[in-house]
Amino acid sequence: MKRTLLATAIASLGLFSAFSQAAEHADLIITDAMVLTMNQDKTVYENGTVVVKDNKIIAVGDESLEKKYKADNVLDVDGDIVMPGLINTHTHVSMTVFRSLADDVPDRLHRYIFPLEAKLVSREMVRIGANLGNVEMLKGGVTTYADMYYFEDEVAKTVDKIGMRAILGETIIKFPVASAKNADAGIDYTLNFIEQYKDHPRITPAFAPHGPYTNTTETLQKVAKLSLEKDVPVMMHLAESDREQQVISERSNGLSPVAYMESIGALNKNLVGAHMILVDEHDIELVKKSDMGVAHNMSANIKSAKGVSPALKMYDEDIRIGLGTDGPMSGNTLSTIDEFNQVAKVHKLVNQDRAAMPPLKVIDMATMGAAKALHMEDKIGSLEVGKLADIIVIDTKAPNMVPVYNPYSALVYSANSANVRHSIVHGKLLMKDRQILTVDEDQIRKEALEFTDVVRKTVIESGEVVQ
Amino acid sequence: MKRTLLATAIASLGLFSAFSQAAEHADLIITDAMVLTMNQDKTVYENGTVVVKDNKIIAVGDESLEKKYKADNVLDVDGDIVMPGLINTHTHVSMTVFRSLADDVPDRLHRYIFPLEAKLVSREMVRIGANLGNVEMLKGGVTTYADMYYFEDEVAKTVDKIGMRAILGETIIKFPVASAKNADAGIDYTLNFIEQYKDHPRITPAFAPHGPYTNTTETLQKVAKLSLEKDVPVMMHLAESDREQQVISERSNGLSPVAYMESIGALNKNLVGAHMILVDEHDIELVKKSDMGVAHNMSANIKSAKGVSPALKMYDEDIRIGLGTDGPMSGNTLSTIDEFNQVAKVHKLVNQDRAAMPPLKVIDMATMGAAKALHMEDKIGSLEVGKLADIIVIDTKAPNMVPVYNPYSALVYSANSANVRHSIVHGKLLMKDRQILTVDEDQIRKEALEFTDVVRKTVIESGEVVQ
Repeated sequence: MKRTLLATAIASLGLFSAFSQAAEHADLIITDAMVLTMNQDKTVYENGTVVVKDNKIIAVGDESLEKKYKADNVLDVDGDIVMPGLINTHTHVSMTVFRSLADDVPDRLHRYIFPLEAKLVSREMVRIGANLGNVEMLKGGVTTYADMYYFEDEVAKTVDKIGMRAILGETIIKFPVASAKNADAGIDYTLNFIEQYKDHPRITPAFAPHGPYTNTTETLQKVAKLSLEKDVPVMMHLAESDREQQVISERSNGLSPVAYMESIGALNKNLVGAHMILVDEHDIELVKKSDMGVAHNMSANIKSAKGVSPALKMYDEDIRIGLGTDGPMSGNTLSTIDEFNQVAKVHKLVNQDRAAMPPLKVIDMATMGAAKALHMEDKIGSLEVGKLADIIVIDTKAPNMVPVYNPYSALVYSANSANVRHSIVHGKLLMKDRQILTVDEDQIRKEALEFTDVVRKTVIESGEVVQ
Repeated sequence: MKRTLLATAIASLGLFSAFSQAAEHADLIITDAMVLTMNQDKTVYENGTVVVKDNKIIAVGDESLEKKYKADNVLDVDGDIVMPGLINTHTHVSMTVFRSLADDVPDRLHRYIFPLEAKLVSREMVRIGANLGNVEMLKGGVTTYADMYYFEDEVAKTVDKIGMRAILGETIIKFPVASAKNADAGIDYTLNFIEQYKDHPRITPAFAPHGPYTNTTETLQKVAKLSLEKDVPVMMHLAESDREQQVISERSNGLSPVAYMESIGALNKNLVGAHMILVDEHDIELVKKSDMGVAHNMSANIKSAKGVSPALKMYDEDIRIGLGTDGPMSGNTLSTIDEFNQVAKVHKLVNQDRAAMPPLKVIDMATMGAAKALHMEDKIGSLEVGKLADIIVIDTKAPNMVPVYNPYSALVYSANSANVRHSIVHGKLLMKDRQILTVDEDQIRKEALEFTDVVRKTVIESGEVVQ
């Protein structure tokens, strides 16, 4: 990127100061970057620099920083966009192996997905699917994700290996599943998982009761209590479907799912509610008061014709809310970057206002908003000194990205997941020029494709529709 | 892709037949392909072959064709999806140089875009912008596009050079623009352009009256008459905005834009109406009766909060309708592949039915539907013997595309423009493994970036908002 005279002058001052004191040692310096910090003031450095030491960001600013630090690893990004890694607040990563099956079947969760999972979920399936999904997310700029599925200790191993960051919630549900015979067994499974991973630097174990209608009041209360005792998150589908709303209304003398959760003492700061489509004004007040987080999954919600969450209203009311993709049978892709335009445009459509949900709000919901939704805003979500170094670089030279008069607009209205060039997590470069450095992508794809033969055979033999 | 025993047996028969008669000479054979023909029966060949000679498809079928033809150029696509090139039914390609400017300004066309164009549209701007847009489209699998802008003879030169196919419509509008001082001068400009390009094998010159409300009745009638005489298309924004509806209603004693066009004798088989959001049952009947085409631009229409066209209803009533992106200040990307998921999902949302607008209909609207909308269905839109060889290959090994249980679902719910591997137009390989072979992409980007300095200066000096 061409520098202005002023910028060169500032750089010279930086150089001068470098002569007057020794440059500080760092591990990685990213230079010539259009830095979107996503801090409180939404500071942008057009000729910016980000400095990383160990697993943290130790400096963010203009190009004068180049002279104040030295490092063996200098990444000159030639004017590309540098921003916080994307945080996917809701997915079921292992379901990649089921992607593109029976997409448009009505009442699909109960008629198709639960029976399919009863036949095919296993430790092996979870590992294979998670490996594939991790690769897809990392290549799409997702550095942290929140997952809800089975055998999450197996997902944890894949996350550990590739080097990403994740909150992993073991599913708790009232019917028998592959990893537990009932909800209590699911809770026990989760408690073991928590013990195993409670001190991991990048993995946070969590409870994941499937939904309020697929668990008893007793289970939900038990989970809420344990989560506060253990100080771990609770992730749950909430206010998502008509069926859920009906079951909960019958159970609670007409309460909404959110009001029901509050009434049983299970709406608290550890909770992350996914979807939150069927919420009214009163529900939003309860959400705000509880300090819980919200995962907004636009793409999956409109694909299933469930409706549009009042996510913009929640964001504007300072609720902790961030973007998620939902699982790959629902979304069907795993990087929120491929949903940015849908989030912006569908909120404009339903609000009948082209100025509604401007790009800056979308990017905020993909970064700091998502960090807040997961109660991790002190650690990730922005490029600020002291934060963990989760950083992505977006190619601004791909033809779909030229020109960039406004980086937020370019990201929301033009970018796709293939425009992500580099991904850094916990200070470590995990993808460089779209090549993943920590796992073998070809081997992971090969294993996934082999598993599809098992899926095809099972689905076809059982007479279920494939398409 | 691994072959089944049966497939191998069939291939052996093909080999046997090759011994008994000499293999026919072809120019290009695409093998080991998942071929989506998009013919009337929507035939899919899972281990398919496509054979090209000169600029046409001479055979499409299973792998037995491999033994019946020989060619110097054999493209083994290793199980990837092979399908008709995408047809973008509506854009303003040269506006790439304005992309990401003032995206969310209310009443943007009249408050921002027309004044911006008055300052900046020139032959040079048109050339630079078209070059960039062509590259973006070809890399995104678009092989044919329909354009409406100024100096279309300049766009034609860029299309000729890169090797794509296009219908290029010179804008006719009642106020002075860069290429004409008034509507009559615009018509004269178009007539010259038609003379120049009427015999080009890949370029179809056309009239493009901007809209009914930005032209007089007399102009619209004159264009309709001339288009029938010359047998060239007329492309026009129609039934797009509240402002248009109001002006036309006042002009015509309460008629809708479509009914008004019919009443003045300008709704005919040469017309392609872009957007068509504000159409009622009666309008749809008139559209159907006229045999006109429709360009459906979901992404631009919801970004501008103008609403959702009843495109699914029109498709189901056998109206000629295909997908378009609109211009890069509106869409903001130029490949319909990046809109497939929006088209599917937003129609599901507004119809409150997850089974509405299934992937097959979306792909049909991107290929044969789009060919029909442009009245080119006898030449392009499907992979059938005798059709022009406009073919694209989609990577099925990118992590977002794995697995492919259903190719239509994978294309609509998972694919993005970066998954396009190869693009062939008129029998010629124009992009191989994402490298464009006919123009210098780096030089084109460089010129576009240089022009952005002119844009920034003009916009900033005039005090217009950049962002």
